[in-house]
Amino acid sequence: MSILITGGAGYIGSHTVVELQNAGYSVVVVDNFSNSFPEALRRVEKITGKRVPFYKADIRDRSAMEEIFRKEKFECCIHFAGFKAVGQSVTAPWEYYDNNINGTLALIDVMRKYRTKNMIFSSSATVYGKPAFVPITEDCPKGKIVNPYGRTKSMQEEILADIQKADPEWNVILLRYFNPIGAHISGLIGESPVGIPGNLVPYIAQVAVRRLEKLLIYGNDYHTRDGTGIRDYIHVSDLAVGHVKALEAVRQNPGLEIYNLGTGKGYSVLEVVRCFEQVSGVPIPCQVVSRRPGDIAVCYADAGKAERELKWKTTRSLADMCLDSWRWQLGNPNGYHDACS
Amino acid sequence: MSILITGGAGYIGSHTVVELQNAGYSVVVVDNFSNSFPEALRRVEKITGKRVPFYKADIRDRSAMEEIFRKEKFECCIHFAGFKAVGQSVTAPWEYYDNNINGTLALIDVMRKYRTKNMIFSSSATVYGKPAFVPITEDCPKGKIVNPYGRTKSMQEEILADIQKADPEWNVILLRYFNPIGAHISGLIGESPVGIPGNLVPYIAQVAVRRLEKLLIYGNDYHTRDGTGIRDYIHVSDLAVGHVKALEAVRQNPGLEIYNLGTGKGYSVLEVVRCFEQVSGVPIPCQVVSRRPGDIAVCYADAGKAERELKWKTTRSLADMCLDSWRWQLGNPNGYHDACS
Repeated sequence: MSILITGGAGYIGSHTVVELQNAGYSVVVVDNFSNSFPEALRRVEKITGKRVPFYKADIRDRSAMEEIFRKEKFECCIHFAGFKAVGQSVTAPWEYYDNNINGTLALIDVMRKYRTKNMIFSSSATVYGKPAFVPITEDCPKGKIVNPYGRTKSMQEEILADIQKADPEWNVILLRYFNPIGAHISGLIGESPVGIPGNLVPYIAQVAVRRLEKLLIYGNDYHTRDGTGIRDYIHVSDLAVGHVKALEAVRQNPGLEIYNLGTGKGYSVLEVVRCFEQVSGVPIPCQVVSRRPGDIAVCYADAGKAERELKWKTTRSLADMCLDSWRWQLGNPNGYHDACS
Repeated sequence: MSILITGGAGYIGSHTVVELQNAGYSVVVVDNFSNSFPEALRRVEKITGKRVPFYKADIRDRSAMEEIFRKEKFECCIHFAGFKAVGQSVTAPWEYYDNNINGTLALIDVMRKYRTKNMIFSSSATVYGKPAFVPITEDCPKGKIVNPYGRTKSMQEEILADIQKADPEWNVILLRYFNPIGAHISGLIGESPVGIPGNLVPYIAQVAVRRLEKLLIYGNDYHTRDGTGIRDYIHVSDLAVGHVKALEAVRQNPGLEIYNLGTGKGYSVLEVVRCFEQVSGVPIPCQVVSRRPGDIAVCYADAGKAERELKWKTTRSLADMCLDSWRWQLGNPNGYHDACS
């Protein structure tokens, strides 16, 4: 029996494959490589010393998926596949709904047909909207979500919860990620954004190597210690280990469970910039511009439930995150784009 | 140019086709008849004296839909097609999400390809959940929705709003129905539920003809004038006229608009029962049982926005609704099931 990893060549997927293989699990990746590279899987193989079996397929393609399910035996699916760029989701909402919602519906349908009814789903703290309180526990009500990307995550959560409720043979764990950054300590795998990065740390890293001129800071008049927004940054390898723990939990037939995956600590934009400057030794030019609509001041997790129930705790510091991002950036200035794939 | 009516053979769809044809519009119905009957369209033809062109097709079937769009020229789509049984949605959520969400996504995709970017969508007051206040205005925040059917409606609203926002060539009117009951005054068309009716008035009507033994009243200890739940029942022909008005509005390029379609008046379950008994002359045996989870005490519309902006007002009383339901029930004890189709 193996673990199906949809979107396993992506940023979080590839790091999770590393941790799963290191923990002794047999994995099979399905990825359409629409926003990822087979090279990432070759790098994973270098890190783990194990082969990473993969299929190039779109999860919306039922006949391709059924062929895979007929060949392999899966006990669980960790479902990463999906579009994830907030800005793009605003301009191309149809594509986001089709890819994310339809993809998940098609996957569920094939899974139930082949009686694989354990699912770990990549969700996001974005479902809390402007959180009713911080630190955010899993009981925090969902809030008003400000972009289609976030709405697809929330909808997928609701669909999976309804599926589990209607058929208790399903076990579903929804993992709500806070802000994953960093890269594997080897420097071999990391985030490989297409175009201008939408997230803070990849952006800083590209400023550090002078591919981008300066960091734009969207607002320094928030009600926070230095006026810039505070987020719960989590090292992608810690996040990946969280999936290994969730996999152990899903085997205990939990029904439906939701876990925040964050450190429980918030850092401001300026704190991240200062930390990155320290570990890299490179000054990061910044310019403060006006707030972006929809941005919130403060967002960080109460990570207690995952610690209590999954026995999972982050171990990597902000300096680790910055250093690993920096190592990845230096070794792979164009991400995987330079690697022939 | 004509108006595409998806689900046009259904309960609300067929009544809307009547009002549209009476108002001089040219309509084309697309229906897969999964929960409706071609006979309904033949009855509409009897009422209006006009032919009702229709295609048997599933809106998720793109090649079928494209063929229709190539043959016809549509200026607007009134989109009724969708599953609508609350109870069924709880036991078969996948089918509800696939049919309703996927159906709408596929329809949008074909519409934009053929540059038909005016959409009037069948939504529901269910998106208000337990309403924050009554009477419910369109500004009332959406609430926690308690079943998959309602969630599909809310999700479809969000998808359409995002599509319109990303491409302002779209005009989208979301119509939030309160509780449609009644039937066309001719007695020729009406609601033809499969199995035991999920809605109050069809249930009462079947008790009146002794197909069902008695009406179960779910709770008489609500904080209302007689303890039973209060809803905003609206005559389906008034509702259908609301669509004609929305069609006039969508041609004025409104962007995105939301309208409640209700009477603005609430009636309790017992008031509806008494009214039905009066118009039919038949006593309706009732039994009070415990509340159903998820049911709310009071729900009725503030219908002011539709009145001000669409110049639309309901004209039919509760007695009209009951009388027309009764006439339909007497003339069609098995709905359309007896008619060869």
